[in-house]
Amino acid sequence: MANLTKPLDESAFSIIGLGLMGASLAMALRDKVCALCGFDSDPVTRALAAATPDQGIDRVADTLPDALLDADVIVLATPARTILSLLAELHEIGASLKPGALIIDLGSTKSEIVAAMRSLPPHLYAIGGHPMCGKETSGFSAADPTLYAGCTFVLCDAGRSQPDHNTLAESLVRAVGGNPYWLDATLHDQYVAIISHLPYLLSMGLVAQVANDASRDTLFALAATGFRDTTRLAGSDLAMMGDVMATNTDAIWRALAGLQEQLTALLAAFVNDAPPDRAWLSATREERRAWGEAFAKRKENPQNPKQGS
Amino acid sequence: MANLTKPLDESAFSIIGLGLMGASLAMALRDKVCALCGFDSDPVTRALAAATPDQGIDRVADTLPDALLDADVIVLATPARTILSLLAELHEIGASLKPGALIIDLGSTKSEIVAAMRSLPPHLYAIGGHPMCGKETSGFSAADPTLYAGCTFVLCDAGRSQPDHNTLAESLVRAVGGNPYWLDATLHDQYVAIISHLPYLLSMGLVAQVANDASRDTLFALAATGFRDTTRLAGSDLAMMGDVMATNTDAIWRALAGLQEQLTALLAAFVNDAPPDRAWLSATREERRAWGEAFAKRKENPQNPKQGS
Repeated sequence: MANLTKPLDESAFSIIGLGLMGASLAMALRDKVCALCGFDSDPVTRALAAATPDQGIDRVADTLPDALLDADVIVLATPARTILSLLAELHEIGASLKPGALIIDLGSTKSEIVAAMRSLPPHLYAIGGHPMCGKETSGFSAADPTLYAGCTFVLCDAGRSQPDHNTLAESLVRAVGGNPYWLDATLHDQYVAIISHLPYLLSMGLVAQVANDASRDTLFALAATGFRDTTRLAGSDLAMMGDVMATNTDAIWRALAGLQEQLTALLAAFVNDAPPDRAWLSATREERRAWGEAFAKRKENPQNPKQGS
Repeated sequence: MANLTKPLDESAFSIIGLGLMGASLAMALRDKVCALCGFDSDPVTRALAAATPDQGIDRVADTLPDALLDADVIVLATPARTILSLLAELHEIGASLKPGALIIDLGSTKSEIVAAMRSLPPHLYAIGGHPMCGKETSGFSAADPTLYAGCTFVLCDAGRSQPDHNTLAESLVRAVGGNPYWLDATLHDQYVAIISHLPYLLSMGLVAQVANDASRDTLFALAATGFRDTTRLAGSDLAMMGDVMATNTDAIWRALAGLQEQLTALLAAFVNDAPPDRAWLSATREERRAWGEAFAKRKENPQNPKQGS
């Protein structure tokens, strides 16, 4: 079964879901693939995409089966639970896909999606994906061709790909400026619960705490840049984050328990104010500074591939 | 005891503490007051201030008493516990201050400071202050003349000021572009625990959680813009924030308990995914959007005074 796949520039792409992630991917892939078909379940988004052909999409399909017909690579760029529904549909209509066609998703959680990929019929190929980038604005109009530049792009083996598919997936990631990072789906979900889902939940929690307070107007008058940055994620797309919360609930609760331990230790360290504690607080501050610098460098200088554990 | 104070442009200022807040205040007050003396307990900072006279400081004093001698307005721009020590010193040397001289502080917490102001000898005048602005960088070199532009500048009555002093304090706030906002010290501390101290603690907690994890390298590789913004406050000055934690511990714990309630409600709403919950989530997201827009407008258009409750 060698040479099932073509190189990236000879591959026909279909992107299902033309929100921020899908539409940005189309812009970033422009002129790098041989054809790019787009589909969105929302007719308004389809009309918008059809009216702006300069954003990388060659053809907007009217139905899902029509979008999938000629695709060598199918990118599922919707919220996580919609990806699960799409995989169920692909299960049904899989016989009509091109032989060797590869399905890649961009969902924010990976365990349930990769499990669904594993139960696809054996002739269907699939790899889980999660680009670690985003914005607090959403939708087709928020698309940005540089969204993926410098991002860590997680790829999860689902036992449904040949080496050629893996190479193709890595080429796709590099073509949009990302760094491929292979990672186990379960570990991925544990990790992103800590560095992404928990910050989102805290961000929403802080806003809810202020908004529901009897002194909300005074609180909002006092809130400044610290509150602004800490709560920026509360602007994230609710459909996307709702699916994240629903498909990664346990890991998020565990991450929250871990945070509570850290908060207790931190407050004790501040109150004790003794040298070992102060050194620990200082080290924590330094960790943030060092990561912040490394992250900024990664964003400026996109190509720096790294292998996950 | 009328006319104890002069108008702003005839007042001699002394700023004690030439870090980010004090040095930025000096830059913002340049040419708006008749004299500006600066003092810092750190000789390196004093030398730096003396070497850069274009930043608004006319004279750098070598000792605290020397700095206070000619001042009509004394601004205490140090971390909160240092302000408490300075107030104790002023208690001692108060007799040598100019009659009618006004002490204003810029500390992040107000209850303990205003209580210390209340116990000053009756001939000393004082008002508590807290400008709701800052940066995650600190020190004299980080000073920025626009730091106070558009900020809500809390003023707390300490029972140690005449109407003329209050007017002078408001003029000072407006001169640097801020909006005076009179507020009770205890309420202030409860409010800032929610909108400022808790976000800082969460920010540090998230960093500590990642830094202390066995998989820290992978977590840092996956962390992206969401983590960056949510943890930006972890770069804040440790001396300042240590004093905040130590002088507002109870209110911060209460704020944390309030956040936990919100988090429980949020996660339940996400998991239930029913219409009333979805409306609540959507309303929370909308609260953040509306506040973000109003805050940006306030920053762009500094003069919009408002009265606190």
